[in-house]
Amino acid sequence: MQTVVFALPGNENLATKLATRINASMGELTIRHFPDKETYIQIHSDVKGKRVIILCTLNNPDEKLLPLYFLSQTAKALGADCTCLVAPYLAYMRQDKQFKPGEGITSAYFAKFISNFADSLITIDPHLHRRHSMGEIYTVPCTVLHAAGLISTWIRDTIEKPVLIGPDSESEQWVEAVAKNAGAPFIVLEKIRHGDREVEVTVPHVEKYREHLPVLVDDIISTARTMIETIGHLKKAGMKPPVCIGIHGIFAGNAFEELKAAGVATIVTTNTIGHPTNKIEIADLIASAF
Amino acid sequence: MQTVVFALPGNENLATKLATRINASMGELTIRHFPDKETYIQIHSDVKGKRVIILCTLNNPDEKLLPLYFLSQTAKALGADCTCLVAPYLAYMRQDKQFKPGEGITSAYFAKFISNFADSLITIDPHLHRRHSMGEIYTVPCTVLHAAGLISTWIRDTIEKPVLIGPDSESEQWVEAVAKNAGAPFIVLEKIRHGDREVEVTVPHVEKYREHLPVLVDDIISTARTMIETIGHLKKAGMKPPVCIGIHGIFAGNAFEELKAAGVATIVTTNTIGHPTNKIEIADLIASAF
Repeated sequence: MQTVVFALPGNENLATKLATRINASMGELTIRHFPDKETYIQIHSDVKGKRVIILCTLNNPDEKLLPLYFLSQTAKALGADCTCLVAPYLAYMRQDKQFKPGEGITSAYFAKFISNFADSLITIDPHLHRRHSMGEIYTVPCTVLHAAGLISTWIRDTIEKPVLIGPDSESEQWVEAVAKNAGAPFIVLEKIRHGDREVEVTVPHVEKYREHLPVLVDDIISTARTMIETIGHLKKAGMKPPVCIGIHGIFAGNAFEELKAAGVATIVTTNTIGHPTNKIEIADLIASAF
Repeated sequence: MQTVVFALPGNENLATKLATRINASMGELTIRHFPDKETYIQIHSDVKGKRVIILCTLNNPDEKLLPLYFLSQTAKALGADCTCLVAPYLAYMRQDKQFKPGEGITSAYFAKFISNFADSLITIDPHLHRRHSMGEIYTVPCTVLHAAGLISTWIRDTIEKPVLIGPDSESEQWVEAVAKNAGAPFIVLEKIRHGDREVEVTVPHVEKYREHLPVLVDDIISTARTMIETIGHLKKAGMKPPVCIGIHGIFAGNAFEELKAAGVATIVTTNTIGHPTNKIEIADLIASAF
């Protein structure tokens, strides 16, 4: 079946790379706002009987969902065989239970809406926290891709004497895997409780790694609070300013400036969300799903 | 059945008036954005087994739809018997056919989405153009209310010597009805073709109405192009600066400033969309639907 790739505004670069890699054609469309802010949409390419891929990363999701939904519906009205949503970053994965009475479990509602208009979903490292699989909330087939391999490769190829840092014991398994594939050592920060309130965070075996370049890895850099805190602990322990790697660079508000100011060697992200820190290319990873 | 009225941000005034008029309680909720712009929602009021009314006017619709959908889903998850969307202004009524190949018929897609999460819809003068009824696109029960009566009353009570103006023959029926109920005369502008390109617009019987106050009425003031053009014709014919009345005051971009600058006596709207020009109250009209 022939495949056509459409990009929502801002996703053109990645969509073009993906289309080239999977031998698909790039779809042409007009998407704009009327003066009253309603969205206008027109598909110029022939989609009849074809598989339609819609590429739209979902940071700042609220304003994107209606245009995305319209595009999928328009493609189907024009005879598309199916629409597959490629959302390199998938939003609304955090509110996955009622933390307080009366709260909306938005991850489930969001999944229901997407499942209503897309026939399948491909995403990279969704923030599955309390959930075990996408199938718990998404009723359409989901392909979950992982960027850990790309990150390990980037570390191995770029950093001379790295040491991976896990900010807490929860991160241990993940950090260990990335470190192993990068051929690098890793350490996990330790919390020592002094009485009820005081918590001391220490860097174990710090003397062994003073000449290494610390590497912090997280799935999402949003407010960057965790990274900034970890940088403080490393600094106190006399380690070098670290390399900070995020799969998804959201950088909410002034997070990017604040993270830089905290003292970093460099900040690196994949291009799931367009940002000047993008250094790790995900086009091949997405193409591998087709 | 007990009824609880919730207001999306910006709709609190009208919601409170509606709740008072129909003996319902005002629902309390928290709705805010996380730093990454995702919406957080928490309903504080008891909604179990109750009828939930959600008031949200739908100018600037794209950013409002996801929070609106989340609120409806949350209410249902908490046991609400049904959710009724009150959208004094309803968006996406214009793109109701494919004017060009490949265009999305967004009015139908929008209706489908709303019909998927709201159990009923109440709105005021939706822009039904090529469609005859809401039932052609909305699959849930819709109540369509009309503000014409309120506008006639406002004209009768406020303007001493009005003459209603219809900008073209299409508007004749509607203008005639408003004029009749206001106890006022009306005239419809006439287009005279001179050859293929030149069109002259004249004001019939203008000498009879030079001392009257012209009143222009339209359902939506968006870019205000039609009104500004009509004002030009009235001015040329030597009539007074008119009163401009819109049911829905969208005022896209600089439309409000441009309309004022065109030379008007005053600009008046109903409060379907909050704006300094709101002078005609719709709370009773909405309450009449319950």
